[in-house]
Amino acid sequence: MIYRLYYWPDLQGRGEFIRLALEYAGARYVDVLRMPGGDFRREANPPPFAPPYLVAGKRVIAQTANILLFLGPRLRLAPRDEAGRLWAHQLQLTVADWLTEVHDTHHPIGSGLYYEDQKPEARRRAADYLAHRLPKFLDYFDGVLGGSGGAFLLGRRLAYPDLSLFQMVTGHRYAFPRAMARIERRYPRVVALHDRVVSDPRLLPYLKSRRRIPFNRQGIFRAYPELDDRRNNPKKT
Amino acid sequence: MIYRLYYWPDLQGRGEFIRLALEYAGARYVDVLRMPGGDFRREANPPPFAPPYLVAGKRVIAQTANILLFLGPRLRLAPRDEAGRLWAHQLQLTVADWLTEVHDTHHPIGSGLYYEDQKPEARRRAADYLAHRLPKFLDYFDGVLGGSGGAFLLGRRLAYPDLSLFQMVTGHRYAFPRAMARIERRYPRVVALHDRVVSDPRLLPYLKSRRRIPFNRQGIFRAYPELDDRRNNPKKT
Repeated sequence: MIYRLYYWPDLQGRGEFIRLALEYAGARYVDVLRMPGGDFRREANPPPFAPPYLVAGKRVIAQTANILLFLGPRLRLAPRDEAGRLWAHQLQLTVADWLTEVHDTHHPIGSGLYYEDQKPEARRRAADYLAHRLPKFLDYFDGVLGGSGGAFLLGRRLAYPDLSLFQMVTGHRYAFPRAMARIERRYPRVVALHDRVVSDPRLLPYLKSRRRIPFNRQGIFRAYPELDDRRNNPKKT
Repeated sequence: MIYRLYYWPDLQGRGEFIRLALEYAGARYVDVLRMPGGDFRREANPPPFAPPYLVAGKRVIAQTANILLFLGPRLRLAPRDEAGRLWAHQLQLTVADWLTEVHDTHHPIGSGLYYEDQKPEARRRAADYLAHRLPKFLDYFDGVLGGSGGAFLLGRRLAYPDLSLFQMVTGHRYAFPRAMARIERRYPRVVALHDRVVSDPRLLPYLKSRRRIPFNRQGIFRAYPELDDRRNNPKKT
């Protein structure tokens, strides 16, 4: 099976969570829009609401977490039993909720408006996010790691939500470097998971390759210094 | 199997999507926090990030769409084959994204802040939502209904995403009555689905019962007239 991924070619975005799973598993896939002449399909059945979507044979599957639900067992990145698969998926859905909140730090008013047209609101939302929401998500995943019985979210074997949690950490370090420097030490198991994944020989070649699109200001994680902790005015930890 | 649902007792919220499926199917369940002395579990394994969560025997399942993924085949509210189940789930995840956008019309800055502390931002976000996002979601689901080969999203049999789409329509009519009066006629298949579900004899007793919590200003759908279309100043259709 050669999978075909349809997603924006110039940013990591939601598609990156799929790419990480495909790359880690060594799956054969085409990142369609990054190929010469590649474009979204005019018709896809059943119809996706938005990218990313994956074509696997005659199947068309959309929604990032749904794609990973489909790929997980096929790529050996999820447990085989139903309880394990649903738990992996539940974690992925929590990552999805978290990612939406990250997006809304720079687009709190409308995803169709420019950032420049919602900067005051973005500052308020980002401050609230960094003060309340980011610690809540990090604390949750640190707790899951603490209770899993292994170094990974589901225990002793890496599963696709581990790759997604790695992406969340590296994305936050790019977008909110001061805030992350301030708080990430409070979540040592999350940081250790990041470190384990980033140096995994199954992923390292991809991360060092040109296939890994650099973070930039078209993506979900954006480095706007004015949305990060204020310089020289760190909040008390 | 007697299912145990854990969710806030005084609002519809995300839990309502689970309640609708359980009620439609005539499943045996306890809405735990609505019982005398009922409360959230101190420990749940694996741990949910947030309510709702469902306890089924020894299983604890969280994330609304994940709970419906689990319940769908068991309540005969989803296809049996993998492709059909993933398609139903994909639609549910799109409803989940949509619902988050509805929530953020009144809480664009922070879910932990009062609405009164983010009213100007809420007005901007709600206006953008009604102008751009609501039509996009309604158009999508109308298109899915048009291509399904039946009166329901998946074809000729009602599945759980149909109940969720009904909830979205009735919620919008409560929260944004002027905007809905202006635009819903453009999506006749969505309206027809709503009408079919609301009068379904399998659901009607629940909808008329005291088990159906009325919409209110603690829920996701909130009737703040200042966030709806302006009175006497309807936008051109």
